Amino acid sequence: MSKHIGGFDPSGEDPDKPAACGRPGKVYLVGAGPGDPELLTLKAARLLSKAQAVVYDHLVGEEILNLANPAARMIYVGKEAGYHSLPQDRINGLLVDLARSGLEVVRLKGGDPFMFGRGGEEMEELLESGIECEVVSGITAACGISACTGIPLTHRDHARSVIFTTGHLKDDTVNLDWPALVRPNQTVVIYMGLGALDIICRQLVVHGLPGDTPAAVVHAGTTNRQVTVTDRLDQLSATVKRAQLKSPALIVIGSVVSLHALLGNGTSVEELALTG
Amino acid sequence: MSKHIGGFDPSGEDPDKPAACGRPGKVYLVGAGPGDPELLTLKAARLLSKAQAVVYDHLVGEEILNLANPAARMIYVGKEAGYHSLPQDRINGLLVDLARSGLEVVRLKGGDPFMFGRGGEEMEELLESGIECEVVSGITAACGISACTGIPLTHRDHARSVIFTTGHLKDDTVNLDWPALVRPNQTVVIYMGLGALDIICRQLVVHGLPGDTPAAVVHAGTTNRQVTVTDRLDQLSATVKRAQLKSPALIVIGSVVSLHALLGNGTSVEELALTG
Repeated sequence: MSKHIGGFDPSGEDPDKPAACGRPGKVYLVGAGPGDPELLTLKAARLLSKAQAVVYDHLVGEEILNLANPAARMIYVGKEAGYHSLPQDRINGLLVDLARSGLEVVRLKGGDPFMFGRGGEEMEELLESGIECEVVSGITAACGISACTGIPLTHRDHARSVIFTTGHLKDDTVNLDWPALVRPNQTVVIYMGLGALDIICRQLVVHGLPGDTPAAVVHAGTTNRQVTVTDRLDQLSATVKRAQLKSPALIVIGSVVSLHALLGNGTSVEELALTG
Repeated sequence: MSKHIGGFDPSGEDPDKPAACGRPGKVYLVGAGPGDPELLTLKAARLLSKAQAVVYDHLVGEEILNLANPAARMIYVGKEAGYHSLPQDRINGLLVDLARSGLEVVRLKGGDPFMFGRGGEEMEELLESGIECEVVSGITAACGISACTGIPLTHRDHARSVIFTTGHLKDDTVNLDWPALVRPNQTVVIYMGLGALDIICRQLVVHGLPGDTPAAVVHAGTTNRQVTVTDRLDQLSATVKRAQLKSPALIVIGSVVSLHALLGNGTSVEELALTG
C-alpha cells in the first residue's frame, strides 16, 4: 500500500489531492469481515484491488489492507474507543470530498457495514451530497466467530432464534432491552460489550436468565490472536477478568455455547482462564 | 464442473468411487452466501477450486457451482421444501462416506452454515464418526439482502438490535416467540417465512407491533432475480400475494425498512406490486 495518513485533516490542503474533475467518483461501503483476510468476499477483494482511496478504521488489519491497490491512498480514521479518531461527521465529509475529487473510494469497515457499522448514516450523508454509493456486505463478527469457535448461532436442539445487540457504553449506563435478551431458546450476541460485561451478566440473571446458562467471550475472533473464554453466565465476568481479555470482543450467551466443547477444535483457552 | 448427480444413493455402489485409503479426507462445511457469486469469501472460493467432492443443496446457484474444481464430483442433495431430497441423516451419512473414501469434501450450504443451516448437526455427526471437519462462515441472507436493498439491520435512529428467526412451517403451525418479536427499536428478520407470511403479520399485530410498521419481503436477494416488496405490516401479506413472490424469500420488519426508499438504489418493485 502506498501510505497511511493518521488523523487526516479533510479541511487542510493536500498536495497529492487530485484536481476536481467533471465526473464525481463513487464510494463503496465495504464490509471487511471479522478479521481473517480470507473471510473477505470476492467482491470486497476486487474493489480493494482497484480502489483509488481506502478509508479504514482500527478493526481492519494490516493483512487486509495489503490487498489494496498499491497506488491507493490509504486513510486511517480510527474509531478505537477512547483513542484519537475522526468524529463521524468528519468521516462523512472526508468521503464526500474524496468522491467529489473523482476518486473511486472504498470505505472499509470491520464486519458488515449495515450491522452495527453505521453504514446507513454514512450512506445517507453521501446520497444527500449527490455521491453515488454502494454497500458490499461482509461477514459479521457473530457469524465468523461462530464458525471459528464451534458455536452455532442457531441449532434445532438449542436455539431457533438469535438476537444481536450492542453493549457499547454511553455515559457509563447500559440501557439494554433486558426482557428481549432473556427469552427461551434464543442465542444472544452482544457486540462491543466487554466494558459492560459485569453489568450485562448481572442484569440478564436479574431478568430471568438462569445463572448456569453457558456463555462465552471471544477476543479477536477468526484471527491468529483469537482467545475464547467460556463459563456459566454468573461467573463469566470474573473469568474474563482473570483472563485479561481486551477489545475487540464478542459476547455469546445461550445453550449453543455448550457445543463449543465438542465442535470447538481445541481453539479455546477456558481451562487456562479458569485456573489463572 | 464435472458432473451433477441428482438423488444420489449413498447406499448404492458407485464405479467412480475411489477406493478407501488409509488417510480419511476432510469435510468443509462452507457458506455459499446469499446468492451473488461475488459474495463468496476468498476461503470458500479457494476450497471450492480444489475440492474433490462438492455436496450442495438447491439454494446454491449454477454460477457458484461453476467455481468448483472441474474434476470434482458434484452431488446434489436437494432440500427444496416439498420436493424430493435426501433426508438429513442420509446427507450426514453421505458426507461420512465421501470423507472415509479419502476425499476432500466441500459441503456447500446457502448463507452461513451456523445460521439456520443445520451445520451444527452435520458437524456433530461428522466428528462422532471421526471425520475432521471445519466450518467456513458465509454471508447470511439477512446481511446480503440488507446491503442490496438499502435496509440497514441496525441504525442509531431506528434499531439498536436485530433478531433473526425462522418461520418454517412444521405441521401447519407457526409457533414463534411472538413477545420477543414485538420489542421496540428492534429489526425482525424471518428466514423461510413466506409460506406463513399471513399468520406472521397478523400475530405480530395482535401481539402489539403497530400495523403501520414498515416491512419488506425480498425474493432471491443479491441475485439478478431479486424482487423487493415493501408495505406496512398489516398490508404486507396481501401485497406480496399480488406480486406472486416465491421462495426463497426473506422477511424484514421494522422502522429500518423505511430507509429503503432513500438507500435502495431503485431496486424495488413495490410500486408495481401495489398497483398489480
